[in-house]
Amino acid sequence: MTQSDTFSLRGLESFFVGGENVMLDLTPTGDVALAMGSAARPLAQAGNYEIGQMYVQGFLGAPAEGTTPILMWHGGGMTGVTWESTPDGRPGWLELALRDGFDVYVSDAVERGRSSSPPDAITGMDAVFRPKELSWEVFRMGPDEGFSMDTGERVAYPGQRFPMQAFDTFCKQFVARWPELVPRVKSAYREYLARFEDCIVMVHSQGGGMSIDTTLACPGRVKALVLVEPSGAPESEDVSANKDIPHLVIWGDYFDQSPRWQEYRGEVERYLSAITALGGRVDVIDLPAQGIPGNSHFPMMDDNSADVWAMVSDWIRRL
Amino acid sequence: MTQSDTFSLRGLESFFVGGENVMLDLTPTGDVALAMGSAARPLAQAGNYEIGQMYVQGFLGAPAEGTTPILMWHGGGMTGVTWESTPDGRPGWLELALRDGFDVYVSDAVERGRSSSPPDAITGMDAVFRPKELSWEVFRMGPDEGFSMDTGERVAYPGQRFPMQAFDTFCKQFVARWPELVPRVKSAYREYLARFEDCIVMVHSQGGGMSIDTTLACPGRVKALVLVEPSGAPESEDVSANKDIPHLVIWGDYFDQSPRWQEYRGEVERYLSAITALGGRVDVIDLPAQGIPGNSHFPMMDDNSADVWAMVSDWIRRL
Repeated sequence: MTQSDTFSLRGLESFFVGGENVMLDLTPTGDVALAMGSAARPLAQAGNYEIGQMYVQGFLGAPAEGTTPILMWHGGGMTGVTWESTPDGRPGWLELALRDGFDVYVSDAVERGRSSSPPDAITGMDAVFRPKELSWEVFRMGPDEGFSMDTGERVAYPGQRFPMQAFDTFCKQFVARWPELVPRVKSAYREYLARFEDCIVMVHSQGGGMSIDTTLACPGRVKALVLVEPSGAPESEDVSANKDIPHLVIWGDYFDQSPRWQEYRGEVERYLSAITALGGRVDVIDLPAQGIPGNSHFPMMDDNSADVWAMVSDWIRRL
Repeated sequence: MTQSDTFSLRGLESFFVGGENVMLDLTPTGDVALAMGSAARPLAQAGNYEIGQMYVQGFLGAPAEGTTPILMWHGGGMTGVTWESTPDGRPGWLELALRDGFDVYVSDAVERGRSSSPPDAITGMDAVFRPKELSWEVFRMGPDEGFSMDTGERVAYPGQRFPMQAFDTFCKQFVARWPELVPRVKSAYREYLARFEDCIVMVHSQGGGMSIDTTLACPGRVKALVLVEPSGAPESEDVSANKDIPHLVIWGDYFDQSPRWQEYRGEVERYLSAITALGGRVDVIDLPAQGIPGNSHFPMMDDNSADVWAMVSDWIRRL
């Protein structure tokens, strides 16, 4: 199939999961003109708000009746845009999954993107921001000295598959987060799973720990977990609730360059070992170990993103 | 065609328009554990960020080769979610347009939704929030006393077509905005139009003033303007750059209940009169005047949203 071929959908969905009403006694900001050309008016900001909701966009594939929907969860400081396209304009895993006939749901975690940043977060808590420099390191793009704003250089690790010419474009996706809101984030993910009889949860990075935490709390709802470069796992003594869920984990390259990631990966591997010890199924696609070097922390954006997707899609269809 | 019929797409797009690099000397927030189960680390927040970008999601309809794409712009305190679905779960104008074969691009204005709230906005400027109470009034849902958090009552104007049982669900879409950032919002809209040889701009509420401002600044790029309940127009002496653009304006009901909206509509009608005086084409769908009472400020969500869309779609196809 060529990229110009069409694909079919049964429909689109867009909805919010969770959230609750709160009364916030915000002070007025003075007169504001909300409409262009009209008079400024006092703005009554005190009042009731919805907070803690999570935005979900659903794409109903065709022909997909009877197949299990895929829920795609992004990582930290990101939104559902992670899955939509690559920064250099190639189709993302969302579109590739739709072309394979899956139903796909893409969410923005609570407090991020279209889920809205609630007023109490903007006005009352410390936000966490991740500049380009830190992202360059955390996402295993290249050596620290490879990133220079002065020269504009982006010198990546040798063989790096991330579309480096689009690194700064990629940084436009970044959003703030509020560590104090993690309980709200988790709560909405639990409500989200409760909406589905059966689903496949596919996560990236920080979404890894979130998905393990959520599935431990909501047993019996998830047919499979696809962990793309998961950055952690909850410190749970008992992971038996997840032992019947087949796990697929995908690792990119350059772990030897990153003490941070050696620690993160260690946490995940301890969890996966516990699943295996309980008789559970854990499949690993360690890309460089399989002769495919050069993937970054974002295999869904790297130059072989369609090939990695094909492996994932194949694994899901064989479930 | 029934709702269960499938429709086809040629592809999905997702990209950012505009934006620029800024160095922000943000102070560290102390140690933060970004990954579940791992050690907290000092977070270097000072560094370079992208700010001022606008997120766009594109849906390439089929068969649509040769048709003019529709760009849907939301209103104040909202995101592109406006166009995706109704709060009670019916298809939004996005899906209806795709089923009609159009290419559709839905954006989140700068600073809102997936466009990200830039750090300098969150940390350094006053945000504007709109509580449910103010939204109830500004969106012409019902009399002030019809909204009560104490009783939970939502008593709308008689004949109101907005799906009132979903009013609080609808409020989950609201996002903050920063009046100081309006120049960035306008700048990104101008860059957005420059990407298209030809397009139809369809706007809601605050997007009305934005679209008129943008088209005046970028002549020759827009085939038609569809103004859905526009809330204002720029105070421009010379609107001749827009005189060759066919305008369609859609008005709902209950203007007699709202001095605010009488002023807003007056601003828009002054602009439209200037277009007409220059020999331009202005078509008006004044729903109650045409025997269709009861529409709120959100005709794309009201119970007759599909009927109103059919009028809009018909107008576009006759251009």
